[in-house]
Amino acid sequence: MKFGVCYYPEHWPQTRWPQDARMMRELGLEIVRIAEFAWAKLEPTPGQYDWSWLDEAIGVLAAAGLEIILGTPTVTPPAWLTRAYPEILRVDANGRARDHGTRRHTCPNSPTYRQFSRQIVRAIGERYGSDPRISGWQIDNEFGGGGTARCYCENCAAAFRDWLQARYGTLAALNDAWGTIFWSQTYTDWAQIRPPSDHIDKKNPSHVLDYYRFASDSFVSYQQEQVDILRELAHGRFITTNFMGLYRDLDQFDMAETLDFATWDNYPTGNPERWRPLLYPPGADAKTNNPLYAYDVGDPMVTGLAHALTRGLKNAPFWIMEQQCGHINWAQFNPGIRPGTPRLWTWHAIAEGADTIVYFRWRATLFAQEQYHSGLLRHDATPDVGYHDHLTFQADRDLLDDLARQPITAPVGILFDFADLWALQLQPHRQDFGYLRLLYVYYTTLQRLGIPVNLVPKTADFTPYPLLIAPTTHLADAQLASKLNDYTQNGGTLLLGVRSGFKTTSNLVTDEPLPGALRKLVGATVTSWQALPPDVGWELETAVPHLHGPAGYWLETLNAQTASVLATYKPGGAAALTEHKVGNGRVLYLGFYPTNEQARALLLHLAGQLGLNWLPDLPEGLVAAQRGPYTILLNFTEQPISYPLNGQAVLVNSRDVAVIRR
Amino acid sequence: MKFGVCYYPEHWPQTRWPQDARMMRELGLEIVRIAEFAWAKLEPTPGQYDWSWLDEAIGVLAAAGLEIILGTPTVTPPAWLTRAYPEILRVDANGRARDHGTRRHTCPNSPTYRQFSRQIVRAIGERYGSDPRISGWQIDNEFGGGGTARCYCENCAAAFRDWLQARYGTLAALNDAWGTIFWSQTYTDWAQIRPPSDHIDKKNPSHVLDYYRFASDSFVSYQQEQVDILRELAHGRFITTNFMGLYRDLDQFDMAETLDFATWDNYPTGNPERWRPLLYPPGADAKTNNPLYAYDVGDPMVTGLAHALTRGLKNAPFWIMEQQCGHINWAQFNPGIRPGTPRLWTWHAIAEGADTIVYFRWRATLFAQEQYHSGLLRHDATPDVGYHDHLTFQADRDLLDDLARQPITAPVGILFDFADLWALQLQPHRQDFGYLRLLYVYYTTLQRLGIPVNLVPKTADFTPYPLLIAPTTHLADAQLASKLNDYTQNGGTLLLGVRSGFKTTSNLVTDEPLPGALRKLVGATVTSWQALPPDVGWELETAVPHLHGPAGYWLETLNAQTASVLATYKPGGAAALTEHKVGNGRVLYLGFYPTNEQARALLLHLAGQLGLNWLPDLPEGLVAAQRGPYTILLNFTEQPISYPLNGQAVLVNSRDVAVIRR
Amino acid sequence: MKFGVCYYPEHWPQTRWPQDARMMRELGLEIVRIAEFAWAKLEPTPGQYDWSWLDEAIGVLAAAGLEIILGTPTVTPPAWLTRAYPEILRVDANGRARDHGTRRHTCPNSPTYRQFSRQIVRAIGERYGSDPRISGWQIDNEFGGGGTARCYCENCAAAFRDWLQARYGTLAALNDAWGTIFWSQTYTDWAQIRPPSDHIDKKNPSHVLDYYRFASDSFVSYQQEQVDILRELAHGRFITTNFMGLYRDLDQFDMAETLDFATWDNYPTGNPERWRPLLYPPGADAKTNNPLYAYDVGDPMVTGLAHALTRGLKNAPFWIMEQQCGHINWAQFNPGIRPGTPRLWTWHAIAEGADTIVYFRWRATLFAQEQYHSGLLRHDATPDVGYHDHLTFQADRDLLDDLARQPITAPVGILFDFADLWALQLQPHRQDFGYLRLLYVYYTTLQRLGIPVNLVPKTADFTPYPLLIAPTTHLADAQLASKLNDYTQNGGTLLLGVRSGFKTTSNLVTDEPLPGALRKLVGATVTSWQALPPDVGWELETAVPHLHGPAGYWLETLNAQTASVLATYKPGGAAALTEHKVGNGRVLYLGFYPTNEQARALLLHLAGQLGLNWLPDLPEGLVAAQRGPYTILLNFTEQPISYPLNGQAVLVNSRDVAVIRR
Repeated sequence: MKFGVCYYPEHWPQTRWPQDARMMRELGLEIVRIAEFAWAKLEPTPGQYDWSWLDEAIGVLAAAGLEIILGTPTVTPPAWLTRAYPEILRVDANGRARDHGTRRHTCPNSPTYRQFSRQIVRAIGERYGSDPRISGWQIDNEFGGGGTARCYCENCAAAFRDWLQARYGTLAALNDAWGTIFWSQTYTDWAQIRPPSDHIDKKNPSHVLDYYRFASDSFVSYQQEQVDILRELAHGRFITTNFMGLYRDLDQFDMAETLDFATWDNYPTGNPERWRPLLYPPGADAKTNNPLYAYDVGDPMVTGLAHALTRGLKNAPFWIMEQQCGHINWAQFNPGIRPGTPRLWTWHAIAEGADTIVYFRWRATLFAQEQYHSGLLRHDATPDVGYHDHLTFQADRDLLDDLARQPITAPVGILFDFADLWALQLQPHRQDFGYLRLLYVYYTTLQRLGIPVNLVPKTADFTPYPLLIAPTTHLADAQLASKLNDYTQNGGTLLLGVRSGFKTTSNLVTDEPLPGALRKLVGATVTSWQALPPDVGWELETAVPHLHGPAGYWLETLNAQTASVLATYKPGGAAALTEHKVGNGRVLYLGFYPTNEQARALLLHLAGQLGLNWLPDLPEGLVAAQRGPYTILLNFTEQPISYPLNGQAVLVNSRDVAVIRR
Repeated sequence: MKFGVCYYPEHWPQTRWPQDARMMRELGLEIVRIAEFAWAKLEPTPGQYDWSWLDEAIGVLAAAGLEIILGTPTVTPPAWLTRAYPEILRVDANGRARDHGTRRHTCPNSPTYRQFSRQIVRAIGERYGSDPRISGWQIDNEFGGGGTARCYCENCAAAFRDWLQARYGTLAALNDAWGTIFWSQTYTDWAQIRPPSDHIDKKNPSHVLDYYRFASDSFVSYQQEQVDILRELAHGRFITTNFMGLYRDLDQFDMAETLDFATWDNYPTGNPERWRPLLYPPGADAKTNNPLYAYDVGDPMVTGLAHALTRGLKNAPFWIMEQQCGHINWAQFNPGIRPGTPRLWTWHAIAEGADTIVYFRWRATLFAQEQYHSGLLRHDATPDVGYHDHLTFQADRDLLDDLARQPITAPVGILFDFADLWALQLQPHRQDFGYLRLLYVYYTTLQRLGIPVNLVPKTADFTPYPLLIAPTTHLADAQLASKLNDYTQNGGTLLLGVRSGFKTTSNLVTDEPLPGALRKLVGATVTSWQALPPDVGWELETAVPHLHGPAGYWLETLNAQTASVLATYKPGGAAALTEHKVGNGRVLYLGFYPTNEQARALLLHLAGQLGLNWLPDLPEGLVAAQRGPYTILLNFTEQPISYPLNGQAVLVNSRDVAVIRR
Repeated sequence: MKFGVCYYPEHWPQTRWPQDARMMRELGLEIVRIAEFAWAKLEPTPGQYDWSWLDEAIGVLAAAGLEIILGTPTVTPPAWLTRAYPEILRVDANGRARDHGTRRHTCPNSPTYRQFSRQIVRAIGERYGSDPRISGWQIDNEFGGGGTARCYCENCAAAFRDWLQARYGTLAALNDAWGTIFWSQTYTDWAQIRPPSDHIDKKNPSHVLDYYRFASDSFVSYQQEQVDILRELAHGRFITTNFMGLYRDLDQFDMAETLDFATWDNYPTGNPERWRPLLYPPGADAKTNNPLYAYDVGDPMVTGLAHALTRGLKNAPFWIMEQQCGHINWAQFNPGIRPGTPRLWTWHAIAEGADTIVYFRWRATLFAQEQYHSGLLRHDATPDVGYHDHLTFQADRDLLDDLARQPITAPVGILFDFADLWALQLQPHRQDFGYLRLLYVYYTTLQRLGIPVNLVPKTADFTPYPLLIAPTTHLADAQLASKLNDYTQNGGTLLLGVRSGFKTTSNLVTDEPLPGALRKLVGATVTSWQALPPDVGWELETAVPHLHGPAGYWLETLNAQTASVLATYKPGGAAALTEHKVGNGRVLYLGFYPTNEQARALLLHLAGQLGLNWLPDLPEGLVAAQRGPYTILLNFTEQPISYPLNGQAVLVNSRDVAVIRR
């Protein structure tokens, strides 16, 4: 288990660096991340590099005993570059080019920008690639952050056409895949195809879905260019980048593939402000915090889901590359953070699978966009709340080291697919239907039961999971059906939800009876589907304990062929939940969008059948994580909580942690 | 009475067509509309037509016994056209050109687009104009749909200048008509004039009103080019287009003039979401449905007003060219539709004057923007709710045929003028004042009394109406005053509302005492006018039964010269309602914006005086329409309703219909 | 004391002018403002002037005995100018050039526009500068109105670079001042610098603050060009312009410096709709009017603050250049105005220091954007409510003349600085933190105590004020610290609020302990600061009477060095309010954002210590102003109020005034 911090030596007088380095070590930090925004200082004029300050900084930091992670600074091109080559600037969906004076304002498909990116990465790699003081590399910074994943410039238009040509081969195939016969959209020349900008009033969802894929692939390919250079120049050093939790616009699984491990930037008070509206049930006041949680801790369920997703990227321990350690500056409300809260967040990350925590940032900056963001030190270099909090870990180093070695074993997997997410984002049919919202019903239900869960991509090996939940597998083809069939043949239990199998992979509707490619697997046909208004729902008839209606929001009626019926709607009697034996396993299809209570009843039913363990009566706000033989209890409420575990009452104070070894 | 359906043979394998055609006939359909989006398939390369598939489709459909309506496909130009001539693209008020990949993205004033439009229409007309299997033509599709009625491109700028030159002759006349002396707007060269785009921060309302007129005239003239070609090539076939109910941006009366009859596209669950906020009183929660109505029926008052407006376009029976028959895809919430609801909508349309119903669409499409829109068949070709519902009409064909022959006789007309609507939209003075909102007070009050009403343009013959209501006749001139005078001289009763006669036809304020050109007719002067805040109102003193205050929202005080005073404000005693005998008729001026209750009191008073019949105590949600000798009762609530009619109690079940012959 | 009116002879037939002039005089008006929008009529073609109509208008008005104020018409360039030189058009932050057909659509930095402006001003100045009938000049009209203060065109980009070069000398100094080392923003060539348009997703606050300063300076310099010409050509005539109360985008102190006196345009029912959301506490329903106030009077606290700011611009009596005298047209709701209300507004302005009132406008216009704006006469030339109201002043002329001669003596100053306002607007840290909102707590508290207050810039002489309140002095340097030190050394009491001294003048965070440059003066260190969520607050322990917690919203803990502690937080015991003796005076630092009740307790405490007078138990809605020996009581409520003053009960009717001489 290691701790570190993000540091910007270029912001401070050189004379200050030794003191900072010494203080870092005294605090117990071992890692320092530097240089990821320093392009202009490293290359003040085109092709002329100034390594002196970075040499000195590395020297000072390493001398104090700190491992160094170098960031490639490609997220912040110098002014001489953007001004000389304005074609490298990102263009938004309204056709407006972005401007210098911020970060992430470039296009990943600009040949010019790629060339300059490669040059600076190669230069840094040549200088520091074999330097023993550098333990690893961060590529760029927060790809896609601030809504920058999709660019609509001419470089992108050309690259998109190439991408499509590679994918479809012929225009005829593309026209078929996009259904362009609709509204005479048919393309008769590749040059006619453009990105689906906001200059199109109402867009073809096949066109847009492919553009989302292409935009994601553009960053995969842009990142790969840097990875290739560093693999060549920095043998034996790890390579990673910093993801952003539930960020939706890039396929994080694809991005992570080439990396040694995944990391993410964890800001518990800022992220929920953005993500809660995507996660909580329609009608819930998702924009404000849950009053049950302490006011400065954020939303542990939301943070936990982001930990789970990042852990799932490589199905392995991960880093927090930027860990909030005081107030932030970029939410609409940025509450002050109390002593104890940064420590709670760090414990939470560890409990969920992190093995390294890098705080953001060492000292609050005097400059520019992030002036109001806190650090371990205040602007005047006095210690702030996160500094004091971190001191508490010094006594726990042995426990932490042991914890970091423990695997997280999850008996349940939730299928997570970015293309499914995008397709439903484009056509929710009712505006509050969201892929993440539905997934979150299952995630929070499992959390409240204390059952560890992994998020797994369609490409993963499903066999480790006795139970695999696919809240909705919207886009499906024969290959996926076959893979899921293998999983169940071998004994797996697959729970499929509404809107599964509705679409082909190019985002056309299947013309087969629903759930399309998955129908044989399900052993039943979806005979109708509909959205229901609030307060309208159907009753249920079922032997599943505690599962009852009304079922509303989104309803599908089923007609079981080879499946058996576990629940029916009343009146009417159409099947609402079916179960199909497949080899040694089975497939369930849940024909309605469950409430938390309905999901809990169903999951308890399945957990009982599968012999999974769960924690009864876990109070809301008390998170229970399992890592190896340890159970970690984290209290995110304002009140102390006593919870019985292993036959004893464990008292967890407000914003405190208890670690119990079985 | 005929029924039909919209069909897209180009979306399905040719081998499927015969089965579809046979099923249509079995269901009792007689009409099929095709080809209105098929330009790219008809003209795959410039000037090279491919008629083969359409020949075959027409052959199959006609062989099954279906009449065919051909749409001209000009709403969806092929990609080769938009790419070769980007100047044909519509430009929005912010200067952004629209892009290929949707529909309605072209400018009606582009000479190039007009030329290509004429070519394709002439080609189709030459091929099928005299084909006996084609019974009629639909021009283009939903002119102006999706907010596309107004374009701000250079073609439009030039055409606007021509239009102004034709209207005003000289720049001096234009400067006077627009009051350009204000803020030095004076034009000294025609070339200085541009469309009032959003590049102007605060616009001259005379400038804008003329642009709205011009934009509407642009579509009138664009449509006329197609009508002229088809009148030449398709002798004896009807020509129409499909309107959009309460759509406000084109003058539907002008558009309808050249057509043989009017049609509209009736989507009862989608339209209210858009229109309710324009119709219901300020402060009412207009965005959500009325809880009294069944959850899947929409808002019958809103739908009814759209029927009335469409009927008024030619003062004649009309078609539903696209009738919703299941859920739609384009509202924010698209609830599932229950059995019985499509049938209720069809009956409602017939009750309000439709004589042909064409369902949209035959089968749910697999492709693109409308994938989630239902059809009579599901995606997998199994029958959906609308299919089953339509079967119920087979037993009623004699009654339906008789009904379709019956006229709708309305004793009350409501004056409806698009220029008045636009002028008040531009300057509501209080943001919640709306032309339609005020009109809706009268419309719903008459509906609740079971009194049929027609919407009539200023150009109509008013004599059929014993009572003519002008909720506000905002723009007025001597010609209108003279016409209204003739109407009242001949015995008509005219009820004028607030803000009448305030403006000249070029949207200047009159410098005469109010109501300006109408003052002599009213026999009274409006001595003051004002908006009032919520909860502020004046009491009334009047002998009109049940009419009482507070009167608020918009108040005008009157000073009666030759009129008599029917109501006064207290305290103060200024006249609030005047009545002026004019020849054999009279003119009332109502000096305040009435509540529903106030409108009801006044209309009952007038109905009593005029000997009009009304239905007492009609429950909310039960619509009563009169067509010839028939009274049609439609129950839009979730509960059965028993209503006494002709001395008997008529029971109408939830979402059911009763037809009673007097 | 003088009264006048704004008049547009060019809108009316020449034959009407004599009658209008005669009616003005009969009403008791002595001043008429003309010509500020008449450029196109004065210079109908480039370089060809038409003075005939203006000669005639001046002749008619002067002959009737009216003093004339001429406006320079530069806010409304003729169409021939904007069309020939489109580079003069303002460009918004999204890069869209504004268009002809309105006002304020030009850029103050366009050399072309400046040249044409100088030409027309010189031409008018030459014609009328020495004309004895012209008593003064208004430069342009409402600089910056409608959000036009900041332009992002190429002219501005170039001028901004010049401005920066003059301010910083070297790029190195600029890079330091802006902290461009952050995110590689470093500029290596002046030409790389551009305005901070919305093409930058997230902006550098130092960059933006300087742009705000530059934009303000651009109008200062644009205005100065006209002032210079008129000082040359119009010897002995006053020069002013019309400000807009709480308008925030230009530094009104800078703008006023060159003028002879300040004026503002007072629209009491429109301004609060815009300003209340900036002024009232977060969570208060600031968008609707205070129900305690009469419905048509606006918000007297808001109007009063605007009077106080305008008075503070020159610390002298001011004019109302446009006084609302009936309903307006530009708010979302524009209620009708009752008799008595225009008179109340006029009295309010006089009570707060106005010595001349010019009504807007003489007669409601028939034309264009302001058709729905009332005047003293209606559209049909009959007298409207403001006309009748003004008649009541004829009996009060002696009292008014005496009042106008009286100074306003305020014992309390509130420091007001536009750069502080802008800096906090850019980085509120919690979105509802606003400079004006915090200032308003103090302003309204003083108003409710009947204590006159002046708003004073950092450049003012502070010595007249026994108490100087700096709600937040956010940007601070040694010079300001020294000036404040002098003030307190000489006996002044300075009350500093939260976030003071946080920034340098170039909007960097200080690296000194807080409050930075002011720390020595305060004698205490701010050891932490934080925003708190709603409903979270800390209790207080203090001997200040009636001051108690919870303290929330924004909290700072203090550590007193040489200061004494007046209040502490509990638990914790950190200082919340300190007092530091400095020479003959003292500095208080209030560590939390006070509620109105907390501000009242503290101000009463200080007023008692300083021997200031206040009015006990002043009812809400009764405004008490002091001018010389007069106390003016104004009742803005719907009910009569009896208030004891000088030992007698003074009855003030609803929307009425009482003037009591001590």
